[in-house]
Amino acid sequence: MKNNLYFKKNNKKFSLKDILLKINYNSDEEAINKNIYGINSLKEANNNEISFFNNLKYLNDAKNTKAAACVTNISYKKYFNKNKNIYLILSKNSLIDFYKIVSLFYPYANRDNEKINCINRNNLDSFSFKKVFFGNDCLIDKNVSIGNSTNIGNNVIIKNNVKIGRNCSIGSNVILENSLIGDNVLIKSGTLIGQIGFGFGFDNKKRIRFPHIGRVVIENDVQIGSLCTIDRGSLTDTIIGEYSSIDNQVHIAHNVKIGNYCMVAAQCGIAGSTTIGNYVKIGGQSGISGHLKIGNNVKIGGKSGVISDIEDNKIVMGYPAKSIREFIKNK
Amino acid sequence: MKNNLYFKKNNKKFSLKDILLKINYNSDEEAINKNIYGINSLKEANNNEISFFNNLKYLNDAKNTKAAACVTNISYKKYFNKNKNIYLILSKNSLIDFYKIVSLFYPYANRDNEKINCINRNNLDSFSFKKVFFGNDCLIDKNVSIGNSTNIGNNVIIKNNVKIGRNCSIGSNVILENSLIGDNVLIKSGTLIGQIGFGFGFDNKKRIRFPHIGRVVIENDVQIGSLCTIDRGSLTDTIIGEYSSIDNQVHIAHNVKIGNYCMVAAQCGIAGSTTIGNYVKIGGQSGISGHLKIGNNVKIGGKSGVISDIEDNKIVMGYPAKSIREFIKNK
Amino acid sequence: MKNNLYFKKNNKKFSLKDILLKINYNSDEEAINKNIYGINSLKEANNNEISFFNNLKYLNDAKNTKAAACVTNISYKKYFNKNKNIYLILSKNSLIDFYKIVSLFYPYANRDNEKINCINRNNLDSFSFKKVFFGNDCLIDKNVSIGNSTNIGNNVIIKNNVKIGRNCSIGSNVILENSLIGDNVLIKSGTLIGQIGFGFGFDNKKRIRFPHIGRVVIENDVQIGSLCTIDRGSLTDTIIGEYSSIDNQVHIAHNVKIGNYCMVAAQCGIAGSTTIGNYVKIGGQSGISGHLKIGNNVKIGGKSGVISDIEDNKIVMGYPAKSIREFIKNK
Repeated sequence: MKNNLYFKKNNKKFSLKDILLKINYNSDEEAINKNIYGINSLKEANNNEISFFNNLKYLNDAKNTKAAACVTNISYKKYFNKNKNIYLILSKNSLIDFYKIVSLFYPYANRDNEKINCINRNNLDSFSFKKVFFGNDCLIDKNVSIGNSTNIGNNVIIKNNVKIGRNCSIGSNVILENSLIGDNVLIKSGTLIGQIGFGFGFDNKKRIRFPHIGRVVIENDVQIGSLCTIDRGSLTDTIIGEYSSIDNQVHIAHNVKIGNYCMVAAQCGIAGSTTIGNYVKIGGQSGISGHLKIGNNVKIGGKSGVISDIEDNKIVMGYPAKSIREFIKNK
Repeated sequence: MKNNLYFKKNNKKFSLKDILLKINYNSDEEAINKNIYGINSLKEANNNEISFFNNLKYLNDAKNTKAAACVTNISYKKYFNKNKNIYLILSKNSLIDFYKIVSLFYPYANRDNEKINCINRNNLDSFSFKKVFFGNDCLIDKNVSIGNSTNIGNNVIIKNNVKIGRNCSIGSNVILENSLIGDNVLIKSGTLIGQIGFGFGFDNKKRIRFPHIGRVVIENDVQIGSLCTIDRGSLTDTIIGEYSSIDNQVHIAHNVKIGNYCMVAAQCGIAGSTTIGNYVKIGGQSGISGHLKIGNNVKIGGKSGVISDIEDNKIVMGYPAKSIREFIKNK
Repeated sequence: MKNNLYFKKNNKKFSLKDILLKINYNSDEEAINKNIYGINSLKEANNNEISFFNNLKYLNDAKNTKAAACVTNISYKKYFNKNKNIYLILSKNSLIDFYKIVSLFYPYANRDNEKINCINRNNLDSFSFKKVFFGNDCLIDKNVSIGNSTNIGNNVIIKNNVKIGRNCSIGSNVILENSLIGDNVLIKSGTLIGQIGFGFGFDNKKRIRFPHIGRVVIENDVQIGSLCTIDRGSLTDTIIGEYSSIDNQVHIAHNVKIGNYCMVAAQCGIAGSTTIGNYVKIGGQSGISGHLKIGNNVKIGGKSGVISDIEDNKIVMGYPAKSIREFIKNK
């Protein structure tokens, strides 16, 4: 969440008392007069910030967090026994309660903003851009930055707070928002980058949509196919590492981090918060569940379903994905 | 088919004689002078309407139908033995023959009409809409209705005969046609709703495209992701029940009915005429065959292939999908 | 590659010496003074052209090629022992070296050109088209040809060098480039046809993008769904045979050839260079690997993964796809 340029929180701080009120909790402890200045992950939170813990995968981060407060499940209280400085909000529905608290700080981050303060189209070519080619009918927000020698297709929509590097090619009908795009990046036509992810919960049957305050970061020399969706991160960024290559119709959910020199073939889907190493090859139509860790140099056969972590250098296939040797033996 | 506002049949009635001529059948029975005023499903047809039966899943409906006439397979004649009031058209190619008859009543329903009688763009904001925000370059047909406080993105196309409720958010590059959309609905960018489905047959190697006279009905508080396709119904409506949530790149075919509070993860596909209960959760990249019935509270694991009905409360996984216990045992 | 209208190679010829220089090879043989006038497949190359061999599937073509020169792997030298007229370029990275040579002849074919020399929109209807209906805001290049009675939707982009036949229906938001489209073709909204495919390699960690000099050829009476991607061919054309039908969200990679009267259900993916016969039916969400040959009248069950050739008339299912009898027995 460092360097998050895109959803500046409003400047107000909130006391823990305010925060508890937002989620209909009461307390008369003295601690609740402490002011909280932001939300952050367990790992990155400082002692002015509030964090969240409801997945044991992050147990180590929980044990070592410096956060001032943490929303967590009642049954997870024990994991914080050694941390006397943290204020725990023990919740029956920790995810929803945390959503509500994040929304205090980022009230506009749970939707996509379609308002564009457009550069005058008849003047696009000269508007502070150098050697940028624009196709027809583009809608470019005035605060977008585009590097030299980048080509933009037709009917492209680039919203508020997008930075594009040099020498990129952006196809037609592309929509970009809340994204940081490096140099030499190719994005084929019809791809959507930076929209809110599929994160929400229900509170008394009312939908609470999760704020998405992260960006999509596309590093240098990445190639992305047509009709892909790459959703922006909820609390951290969604990242595609340099020289990685993604084919058509791929879906990459919020918070996914893909390393460098990876190859993702057509119609793959990667669920939220999964991390993928470098030099990973993923065959077409494969799916990877959320919150997994895929090592470096892993090869995943086409149409595989990966539902657990994979160590470096493994070759896997099938559903659930297993070593290719075992896959062939069983078939 | 009640309340079908979108493809008003022309007002002419057709005698059974006219109908038989259309499909190159002859008869000199007296019954063929009877007039037929419309087509309908076996269940809903009245005694002025013609219906269709070629799938034993609908045997019960066939036995109890009140339809004046029915196109069916020669071998299905026996199922109508007790119904003396029905005129049976025993066909060698019942599907194609029925297509042709439907086209008599709905001659323009087998295609998507790209003609829009557009509201003047410079005047969009004031055109009978209250507090509706429009992005740039929208094409909105004059007969579209949009509720208060709804936001419409950029380059959105809303064709003839669409009604949108209040407080909705429609992303950019969305295309809507033949659809009824409730309140508080979110539709992310790039999604297409209400187009004709994948229904056709061949008659002497010539393609006969099935008329699609149904709508897409999106109920209140539904959320639909980016780059989804939800095709309109052929004879009945395609329906997404209230509070249901659909992620990116999902395909929902004609006549599918999804209940309330369901969750459909990214890249799922649901084939034509399948019915899904309430509170059903479907993992990413799953596929469900056509004409199935999935019960309430069913959980379908990611990447599953469902090829038979599922009872209430079951948890299934794999392809063909089976109970999760069995799935794990066999892997 | 015959009749390739779309990426006319520049008129210069290149000597084998020039060609070797381009890939940093040296030779002082006399043969390298020979001029090369183009590149071609092993099968179609004449004795003025250079070709490429790195896949044993094409061994027979290699043995019989008339090409003047061929880039191949060092270990493949033996297959050319009987061909004394060919100049072999034995490469450590034959694919990349060939990419570089193709780029000499077709320097602009490794990207999609977003520049459109647009017909004036206010004048679209009269511009040399007869009875062509255009929706709003189309971008049509001046050199596009469109047959009588064809309907074009809204926001459609048709780039340089596209020919469309008569009586077609093109939906909204469609993008066409480098394509030849027959008569009576239906293309639903949001589909992208003719873009570059997913072909590239790395040379010292620098991406070399493969030139795509082929077209997409859509034959008469084809139907293509919404949000499909059909990439243009690299060295040959991508072809969809007459009367074939493709549902929504299908991906068809470069060089794929689909026969006549095929049916491809929603969300299928067909990888590069695979050839499919006539009357083939492919169930939804199936994937077919690259460089395969699928016979006539084959039926592939939904969600199958095909990783080897299939003979005529077979019915297969599962992953890896096997006969349906075996599939059911094992489940």
